[in-house]
Amino acid sequence: MSGRTLTSVPRLWTETIETHRQTVHDAILDAAWSLVAEHGLLSVTMSQIAEAAGIGRATLYKYFPDVEAVLLACHQRHVTQHLAQLAELRDGPGDADARLEAVLTTYAFISHHRGRHGTGELGALLHRGEHVARAEQQLLDLLGGLLAEAAATGGLRTDVVPGELAVYCLHALTAAAALPSEAAVHRLVSVTLSGLYPRS
Amino acid sequence: MSGRTLTSVPRLWTETIETHRQTVHDAILDAAWSLVAEHGLLSVTMSQIAEAAGIGRATLYKYFPDVEAVLLACHQRHVTQHLAQLAELRDGPGDADARLEAVLTTYAFISHHRGRHGTGELGALLHRGEHVARAEQQLLDLLGGLLAEAAATGGLRTDVVPGELAVYCLHALTAAAALPSEAAVHRLVSVTLSGLYPRS
Repeated sequence: MSGRTLTSVPRLWTETIETHRQTVHDAILDAAWSLVAEHGLLSVTMSQIAEAAGIGRATLYKYFPDVEAVLLACHQRHVTQHLAQLAELRDGPGDADARLEAVLTTYAFISHHRGRHGTGELGALLHRGEHVARAEQQLLDLLGGLLAEAAATGGLRTDVVPGELAVYCLHALTAAAALPSEAAVHRLVSVTLSGLYPRS
Repeated sequence: MSGRTLTSVPRLWTETIETHRQTVHDAILDAAWSLVAEHGLLSVTMSQIAEAAGIGRATLYKYFPDVEAVLLACHQRHVTQHLAQLAELRDGPGDADARLEAVLTTYAFISHHRGRHGTGELGALLHRGEHVARAEQQLLDLLGGLLAEAAATGGLRTDVVPGELAVYCLHALTAAAALPSEAAVHRLVSVTLSGLYPRS
């Protein structure tokens, strides 16, 4: 610690401020998300969010101009977390076929919960957002890469390019939002996977 | 003609009125649809629709209260036509497997064109409409019945109930809206079909 120079002090101070900002930011999103879960998407107000986050309305407005901006940030955080989770599974142990199944299963359950908890409604509301298109592209890239790997090393069909198979997978698995049980979601993953392999 | 009685005259007259109403109704929807294709969904006005249909604004308002009602009727007509087309294929010649492939291919191309011509946007705008949910249910019933027939008579997988396979098919084939070519749509149908059969 004796090696710390004066110049590092402002940086540490900046970091502390940044950490504080991030903590408040996260608390706002947590509060907004609980309110959405409880009251529905369209009835949440800035006052409720401030109260639930334990901050003043003036402070809230320093972070977000309106409810839609808060919900957009909520959605971005969800999407980022899901992408990170899927990337971790893609980079995990096991052969490409096994990792593909893990990624598709997790994505199906994300869709399933989205269908049950109104996150899909949120996605529709914010659908025109550029960040949604960017996240979709990242998801397609992630899955396309893994499908290419499985086609090269496993028994995956090779008559359709990985990019098209990725589009197929993501659309097929959104059906999970309409399914009533976890068992049905597992069957959907199995059916979707069958489409990726040559027919018997 | 000599057998015609007096009482049949009012009925014929009513039928003539009804035919006329239907002609005007169809002309309004045709006009509205052309305007949407040319100018986009949100910039169409009642005046434009009346002019393009060759009727006065007062007449148009006798048929529809506002643009949204016209577009809703457009959408209903599309959906009804598509359902009729799919039902005809389901009831056509050939074994259940062949008819299933015909129905899925046609549905995929409907999705493909919807993606390219903004009909999907229309569907989203009207998404809360009860008639959309009813049409989706009719589509699921139509496909579920055909899948049950193919499971009973063909090589279709029997470890997943037809209703769940129908949900899978419809979601997977909506991917056609995002595909760039007809060849890619055919490949999507092939991949989706593979999911319905046991893996090799």
